[in-house]
Amino acid sequence: MKAILLEQFGIEHLQLRDIPVPAMGENEVLVKTTAVALEYHDSIVVENTIPFGIPLPHIPVSQGVGVVEDVGSKVTRWKKGDRVMIPFIARWEAGKNTPYHDQLRTGFSRSGVLAEYSVQPENTLVRTPNNISDEEAAPLPVGGLTVWAILAEQANIRAGQSILIQGTGGVSLFALQVAKIFGLKVIATTSSQEKMKRLKDLGADEVINYKAFPQWSNEVKRLNGGIGVDVTLDVAGTDTIEQSILSVKQHGFVGLIGLLTGTKLTIDLIPLITNYVRLQAYSVGNAQQLAELVNAIEKNNIKPVIDSVYAIGEVQDAFHRLKSGKAFGKIVLSF
Amino acid sequence: MKAILLEQFGIEHLQLRDIPVPAMGENEVLVKTTAVALEYHDSIVVENTIPFGIPLPHIPVSQGVGVVEDVGSKVTRWKKGDRVMIPFIARWEAGKNTPYHDQLRTGFSRSGVLAEYSVQPENTLVRTPNNISDEEAAPLPVGGLTVWAILAEQANIRAGQSILIQGTGGVSLFALQVAKIFGLKVIATTSSQEKMKRLKDLGADEVINYKAFPQWSNEVKRLNGGIGVDVTLDVAGTDTIEQSILSVKQHGFVGLIGLLTGTKLTIDLIPLITNYVRLQAYSVGNAQQLAELVNAIEKNNIKPVIDSVYAIGEVQDAFHRLKSGKAFGKIVLSF
Amino acid sequence: MKAILLEQFGIEHLQLRDIPVPAMGENEVLVKTTAVALEYHDSIVVENTIPFGIPLPHIPVSQGVGVVEDVGSKVTRWKKGDRVMIPFIARWEAGKNTPYHDQLRTGFSRSGVLAEYSVQPENTLVRTPNNISDEEAAPLPVGGLTVWAILAEQANIRAGQSILIQGTGGVSLFALQVAKIFGLKVIATTSSQEKMKRLKDLGADEVINYKAFPQWSNEVKRLNGGIGVDVTLDVAGTDTIEQSILSVKQHGFVGLIGLLTGTKLTIDLIPLITNYVRLQAYSVGNAQQLAELVNAIEKNNIKPVIDSVYAIGEVQDAFHRLKSGKAFGKIVLSF
Amino acid sequence: MKAILLEQFGIEHLQLRDIPVPAMGENEVLVKTTAVALEYHDSIVVENTIPFGIPLPHIPVSQGVGVVEDVGSKVTRWKKGDRVMIPFIARWEAGKNTPYHDQLRTGFSRSGVLAEYSVQPENTLVRTPNNISDEEAAPLPVGGLTVWAILAEQANIRAGQSILIQGTGGVSLFALQVAKIFGLKVIATTSSQEKMKRLKDLGADEVINYKAFPQWSNEVKRLNGGIGVDVTLDVAGTDTIEQSILSVKQHGFVGLIGLLTGTKLTIDLIPLITNYVRLQAYSVGNAQQLAELVNAIEKNNIKPVIDSVYAIGEVQDAFHRLKSGKAFGKIVLSF
Repeated sequence: MKAILLEQFGIEHLQLRDIPVPAMGENEVLVKTTAVALEYHDSIVVENTIPFGIPLPHIPVSQGVGVVEDVGSKVTRWKKGDRVMIPFIARWEAGKNTPYHDQLRTGFSRSGVLAEYSVQPENTLVRTPNNISDEEAAPLPVGGLTVWAILAEQANIRAGQSILIQGTGGVSLFALQVAKIFGLKVIATTSSQEKMKRLKDLGADEVINYKAFPQWSNEVKRLNGGIGVDVTLDVAGTDTIEQSILSVKQHGFVGLIGLLTGTKLTIDLIPLITNYVRLQAYSVGNAQQLAELVNAIEKNNIKPVIDSVYAIGEVQDAFHRLKSGKAFGKIVLSF
Repeated sequence: MKAILLEQFGIEHLQLRDIPVPAMGENEVLVKTTAVALEYHDSIVVENTIPFGIPLPHIPVSQGVGVVEDVGSKVTRWKKGDRVMIPFIARWEAGKNTPYHDQLRTGFSRSGVLAEYSVQPENTLVRTPNNISDEEAAPLPVGGLTVWAILAEQANIRAGQSILIQGTGGVSLFALQVAKIFGLKVIATTSSQEKMKRLKDLGADEVINYKAFPQWSNEVKRLNGGIGVDVTLDVAGTDTIEQSILSVKQHGFVGLIGLLTGTKLTIDLIPLITNYVRLQAYSVGNAQQLAELVNAIEKNNIKPVIDSVYAIGEVQDAFHRLKSGKAFGKIVLSF
Repeated sequence: MKAILLEQFGIEHLQLRDIPVPAMGENEVLVKTTAVALEYHDSIVVENTIPFGIPLPHIPVSQGVGVVEDVGSKVTRWKKGDRVMIPFIARWEAGKNTPYHDQLRTGFSRSGVLAEYSVQPENTLVRTPNNISDEEAAPLPVGGLTVWAILAEQANIRAGQSILIQGTGGVSLFALQVAKIFGLKVIATTSSQEKMKRLKDLGADEVINYKAFPQWSNEVKRLNGGIGVDVTLDVAGTDTIEQSILSVKQHGFVGLIGLLTGTKLTIDLIPLITNYVRLQAYSVGNAQQLAELVNAIEKNNIKPVIDSVYAIGEVQDAFHRLKSGKAFGKIVLSF
Repeated sequence: MKAILLEQFGIEHLQLRDIPVPAMGENEVLVKTTAVALEYHDSIVVENTIPFGIPLPHIPVSQGVGVVEDVGSKVTRWKKGDRVMIPFIARWEAGKNTPYHDQLRTGFSRSGVLAEYSVQPENTLVRTPNNISDEEAAPLPVGGLTVWAILAEQANIRAGQSILIQGTGGVSLFALQVAKIFGLKVIATTSSQEKMKRLKDLGADEVINYKAFPQWSNEVKRLNGGIGVDVTLDVAGTDTIEQSILSVKQHGFVGLIGLLTGTKLTIDLIPLITNYVRLQAYSVGNAQQLAELVNAIEKNNIKPVIDSVYAIGEVQDAFHRLKSGKAFGKIVLSF
């Protein structure tokens, strides 16, 4: 089968190779990949910017969707032809993950999805939403699921609350879409006039040009009746954490899910304690949560925002697009 | 001031009288009533069907809204002219209520809102939503708040879940509206062809004629992919509880908030235990929850459904309408 | 291997037979049974009192513990000699169960533990606590886990709260022990003078003779400063539900986990709604919860109370003891 | 009445003065102070280390207990002679606090408790536990309540979990005591051999000398079966936050409640996100939570640890003791 094999770190070393189709166990499913989507951490892995100790050669990329090609002898939940989403933490069906579950992370400690076929456990595959294409569904297993788990469960968002969405990456745009279907007021930030309009089209109630307001937490409060928002998701780390914390109200929730501008946070305790702020770091959730997200997407007809779709042979272009920071939504590769 | 005074139990004894305006304390507010709304329990009080031991004469009715007329010497949160909603449990600002809080229940142990003026505590008044009229807001302090507290907090509803709404009383219709803004799938029941259409107009995804399907839990499952719904609110008690329980899925939630057909429930333990069902009895919530509901109403432009508006002199007609069971939405009295 | 095979329903048909050792899959573990414990529902299955549609011949009994004898080719978590507890819902590792998980219930839809060996999935086995014997651990996978899941998670018990424990069956005694390590005040009931003393020895703060007080909810309140308890677990159903509901305070929690006196509940809505009572039906939890319970048992050195231990050849005697209702704690069978 | 009046900032300016007894409103209670306890923030206020903008002259200190001397005309819950605890956030009875509630903070924006009498609202006073003296109860309204609110509610601690307690200040020792009654395993840190013994006497399962192990998170894991603890409370800020974060397991909880070594935190996002860590800043809770704590203290006979008791005339000595960092438990002033 065809696969993108990383034999040395670096985008230029992402090369198409021909390798054997992996063997399937009794409780496993062979999935034919149809579409995959990139996250920022995929570029960290490919370029080894943060050394995760991944042995080479390696098939990168953490999330994707496909179609069931074959099933193991004891599998009862899936049959050939089913559209499925591939798990990131392959053993994590429900509840809390542990080091045991985390041993198998797609695109890290186990092979990623940039391959024609992969073998997946029966119990952590989740059906793809009926109302969207495979390309639209590709960013759900990591980016979409992270947003869902942190907003619906950890932040426990409710109609009438307010949320601050930071920037126009795929994760932030999906957070905006999820917040809208829960009935929240959405304030978004961007640095581009053109993206302001696209954010409003997606349902943002207010948009702040963060370049015009370097202390944008003040603007957030001004647009929210003088008080901070209930929730924000910080996706950039170093450069944004201070304003993120100042943007929430008492008992506010700051999700820590990204590190676009760096991993070192400098934080002042006084506003944190005075305001009883919760900083909640989070990453991808489990299969049971992803199944709940499928229902939410179908019922409310959410279409994840796709920036661009590349063919598998254009994989290096896709990673360059990812690193440019210019994407409005997700970068997808189609098989 | 004018007030409806019950000197003997019975709808025919609801009579307009002239009585003194009540005196205001340091931390209290004098509210001029503008609109009130009836709940089923108001008819129980007026007719003394269930003996609550209320001394006569009594000013009945539990919920209403008004305008601040004057404030006590220590009041800082309100000023003349503010639109406010009157609390049902007058001392219950937040958290859980206790027997101490419950000593003062509007329309039960303390005077109700069928009077031109009333005195209310500063800390449990809540501002009326900006986007709706006083008549539309009148059913929020009891019916609206009960729905909000049980759905948003107890049942913890989320987008993608499903809910069964029973009948077309004001409480059920408000539950439908709240469920829609949280992104749920709504299945509703009614016995009238004409009301089926109105339910769909309000956003119901499916409507069941419960007369055509006496075992309507089967129909609920058929319309929900073969499994029960996540949540239902039982408003009728005796006649509906069995089907309510059979309508929910594993770990499902059955709210017990009404007793239209009787207060005696007969329940089979086997389906309850097999399905890990939660039966949650509930009544009105607190002022902090009502303030959250105001935000949800304004953000999502909810308009509570009003069946009919009566003048204060038509109070007996209003109660007859209430008892007819024919109302689609709330019955309101306007001052 | 030896197994107790039910070829016809009835305690007298519990017979020792010799049958083949079951075959093990890649992700499965062969467990040599060391001790099993009876629950009331086991006698319902054996006598077919409630027809669950179980095909004969059947190996009954839902819970037990053992030692790993062999592991499948892909198993990494267990090795020969490990002490393990056998799951009731064999596929339920964490989160919420679904009909898919429930397809395999030990002693119901799949073979029970009254056999020398059984095959279990790798991911739902849980290690046996270090501080107790296999006989003491035998009642944990069903009875112990049900108590833990409903008290620690659903009722969310906390130090300083109060709980009412009903009777001296194994489940109630384990609830008493769990409540004590969480710092609750415990009120217990019994009809026997001798058991009153044993309940106090186990840590009960107060004991009520329910025969002397048929309206025992009044006595509960008297012993609790005039108000109801925070939590009770109803284990008897028909005969106790009314007093259970009247025994809890506002926002109180009534667990529904047993049906000793019948499955038909008659309930009055008025006290339920006035007090915002939660009725929560529950049964056994998942493997992740059972692992938490193991930590709690080891840290606090809980010893489940064993009424009596029978040899496997005395299985009929064990069931007669179970049905007598005289047991103080659990009835165990040892291999 | 006698009061300690701060006319200039500085410990040396804590001077005994005679001032008028404050006037009481309808819903208020006059409390005769019997004992007060110091928190670290009281020294910040007295020395104005962090400028909170408090106008002088000022009566400092945030927490204390007393006896009801007189009640306002509408007060029904209290009578002369009742032992009561004084609220820190005077308007915060239950639920979440808002800027409105926070306007009146004892010892900050309103007068503190270093005075013979103070006037308090009826609805946020809480009865003093029966099993302890006023001196023992003095540290409950701020330090004790903060610990309770963050452990029992935010961290939702449960039997069988593990907690890391940092140092031997009054707040940490109270956290140890609360953790014990909930059935947790407790690991504590100190730098003194003598305090190690006292920590074990209080129930610590393990004690780490943090001077011997500057990377004490490794030692925490070694003593906890190789994995991090479920919960820790960081009381020191700048110097401890890194090790605090590294001490918890996946989905671990790090409470941020102190700033003994500074308010500037430097945090690495990678371990936070990998482990799904929650950083929860917190401060004092509400009256309803304090009432729950009273029940927990009485039921489990907790005695808060008192380092030393000073007479009101020795107030400067008490503050010097506070600043020395040598206290084992709370520093109390007795009237």
